[in-house]
Amino acid sequence: MSHDNQRTSLDLSQIRSDIDSVDIQIHELLNKRARLAETVAHAKFAQEENPLFYRPEREAQVLRRVMERNEGPLSDTTVARLFREIMSACLALEAPQSIAFLGPEGTFTQSAALKHFGQDAVVRPVTTIDEIFRDVEAGSAHYGVVPVENSSEGVVNHTLDCFKSSNLNVIGEVELRIHHQFMVSEHTRKDSIKQIYAHQQALAQCRQWLDVHYPGAERVALSSNAEAARRIRTEWHSAAIASDIAANTYNLEVLHHNIEDNPENITRFLVIGREKIPASGNDKTSLLISAHNRAGALLNILAPFAKNNISLTSIETRPALNEKWTYVFFVDLEGHIEQEHIRAAIDEIRPFAKELRVLGSYPVAVL
Amino acid sequence: MSHDNQRTSLDLSQIRSDIDSVDIQIHELLNKRARLAETVAHAKFAQEENPLFYRPEREAQVLRRVMERNEGPLSDTTVARLFREIMSACLALEAPQSIAFLGPEGTFTQSAALKHFGQDAVVRPVTTIDEIFRDVEAGSAHYGVVPVENSSEGVVNHTLDCFKSSNLNVIGEVELRIHHQFMVSEHTRKDSIKQIYAHQQALAQCRQWLDVHYPGAERVALSSNAEAARRIRTEWHSAAIASDIAANTYNLEVLHHNIEDNPENITRFLVIGREKIPASGNDKTSLLISAHNRAGALLNILAPFAKNNISLTSIETRPALNEKWTYVFFVDLEGHIEQEHIRAAIDEIRPFAKELRVLGSYPVAVL
Repeated sequence: MSHDNQRTSLDLSQIRSDIDSVDIQIHELLNKRARLAETVAHAKFAQEENPLFYRPEREAQVLRRVMERNEGPLSDTTVARLFREIMSACLALEAPQSIAFLGPEGTFTQSAALKHFGQDAVVRPVTTIDEIFRDVEAGSAHYGVVPVENSSEGVVNHTLDCFKSSNLNVIGEVELRIHHQFMVSEHTRKDSIKQIYAHQQALAQCRQWLDVHYPGAERVALSSNAEAARRIRTEWHSAAIASDIAANTYNLEVLHHNIEDNPENITRFLVIGREKIPASGNDKTSLLISAHNRAGALLNILAPFAKNNISLTSIETRPALNEKWTYVFFVDLEGHIEQEHIRAAIDEIRPFAKELRVLGSYPVAVL
Repeated sequence: MSHDNQRTSLDLSQIRSDIDSVDIQIHELLNKRARLAETVAHAKFAQEENPLFYRPEREAQVLRRVMERNEGPLSDTTVARLFREIMSACLALEAPQSIAFLGPEGTFTQSAALKHFGQDAVVRPVTTIDEIFRDVEAGSAHYGVVPVENSSEGVVNHTLDCFKSSNLNVIGEVELRIHHQFMVSEHTRKDSIKQIYAHQQALAQCRQWLDVHYPGAERVALSSNAEAARRIRTEWHSAAIASDIAANTYNLEVLHHNIEDNPENITRFLVIGREKIPASGNDKTSLLISAHNRAGALLNILAPFAKNNISLTSIETRPALNEKWTYVFFVDLEGHIEQEHIRAAIDEIRPFAKELRVLGSYPVAVL
């Protein structure tokens, strides 16, 4: 070892001992934070019998402040993720939170639940969306996580339908990036692919990629990506777009990874709970509005938002459960129900609606 | 609001501002730690051209110290998990680590990879165990994560077989709890279940539960739990034991959750890499020993371990690839190859072995 190397070794061991002492300080502060969280729990119990421990608006504020003041070298999202885990650990100490998600284990909804609540929450797979609503209503789960947008398996509508017959509130949203894989079976003639199967949403999300790589192949829309993967197992001239999980289940070979045109291919999930969430400073509000399908109904409903300068981030229309010609609109908008202009717009809409329900105001997804 | 409640509110906001100031300190220390890690990276580059950034023995030491000095209120495993994530974030800044795991996404092996390397590692699903070995040998992945024990899908042997023709080292182990679900199809007469299908390992792991709940049902061992789930789809009098993922794939109803007799049903994974790992103070060593199947071969091999007071944690026997009557033993023992008594035992075994290879010494799983 040269003299130079020796010096670097000494430097290294000095830096390592610096890291160790930083670790000791971090460790002490983590436990100090946990003790303060316990004190909060005691104060809350002194105040009310059934206090709320999970405060999504406060978590969102903490994470936003973390990202704002961050000067690196750790990236904003990395420190926010670390703080999410720290808050999750402290919250578990105050009162372990039980979360029902649309199972099975290993699905995107589980990832969403863990992303939102951190690794210290007790997340539990539940078979149907209805059951998640029932579990949260009955209190056997504190919160539920359900998919709402951009899923290729048709669960979107089911989630929205559940809100029609439930009094639960939306208390948060989670966003996840989703990837699509291009797969073939052992029988597939890779140089002669004539059909490509997938759910129509997946086909749409990979349109440009398919135009470039398989311009001549016919695109066949099936009921789900899993069905597409299942079908090509015994075929010679077809390929499927589906998830890694489907490729493994049906023993298929993934020829091309992550073929979605938009690398920011996001699926959105809602967090549901029994309580209402105070404003965090950057919030969304979800509304359920039912109206007779008269010409102009949608216009009457939308005009007050425009007038009050409220941005709508999503509108979904669904038929009402039992009444012909009555429709239900699900509207997401920027702002919190506590804000004056949001209230004003909603008051203007009420006369035109058969029913108008605020599903919830909640912090915009931070991570 | 009573006077008392007002005081509690004031207390609460005081505690919250204390938490905020603790958060600021934690935040500063996290970035300070990251800067020190960057300095380590520079020092390493000054020393050698291709320095190692991931140091499993040091990570294990840091985590053990964290757990030893921890006084709560956060639990030992919670703080260790937080530190795992902090180290993962810092390591990603020095040099992002790419990890190949036995895919698809959403499997236990992915969970094992994330548990071991933290959320900041780049984990990538790979279709076969051979491919993981090839990727790590070729350097297209820094490390690989493969299952070795207690899996019900028969991958155990495959992993061990790969070591026969590879020069890679074992550089770590990961342990995960695994659950079994009892499921039926929509056709199943739930009050008249006559057969229960599963891989024999799953049947064994749920034996007591089955004795109590389905004493009269026949237990049928199939090639895999997934196959068991697939088969009951159209049957009237059968049930399967499989994973949540299988239940979802085949649209089955989980009647009973987590029916494994031993709630500590652990699956073990190995981390493979190109380098050798220095001692961490609490290590295991994996050996590959091939021997002719003469009477006494195994005894000759095992006696030196007993003589040197070395605990064996696992022995697996596999036929050699090309030679009849030659067997390969995979032995895990407590201790590190740098320790004198381990070396002594191995030297005593060599004369009796056709081949003896140290697959690696590595820290015992911390979490």
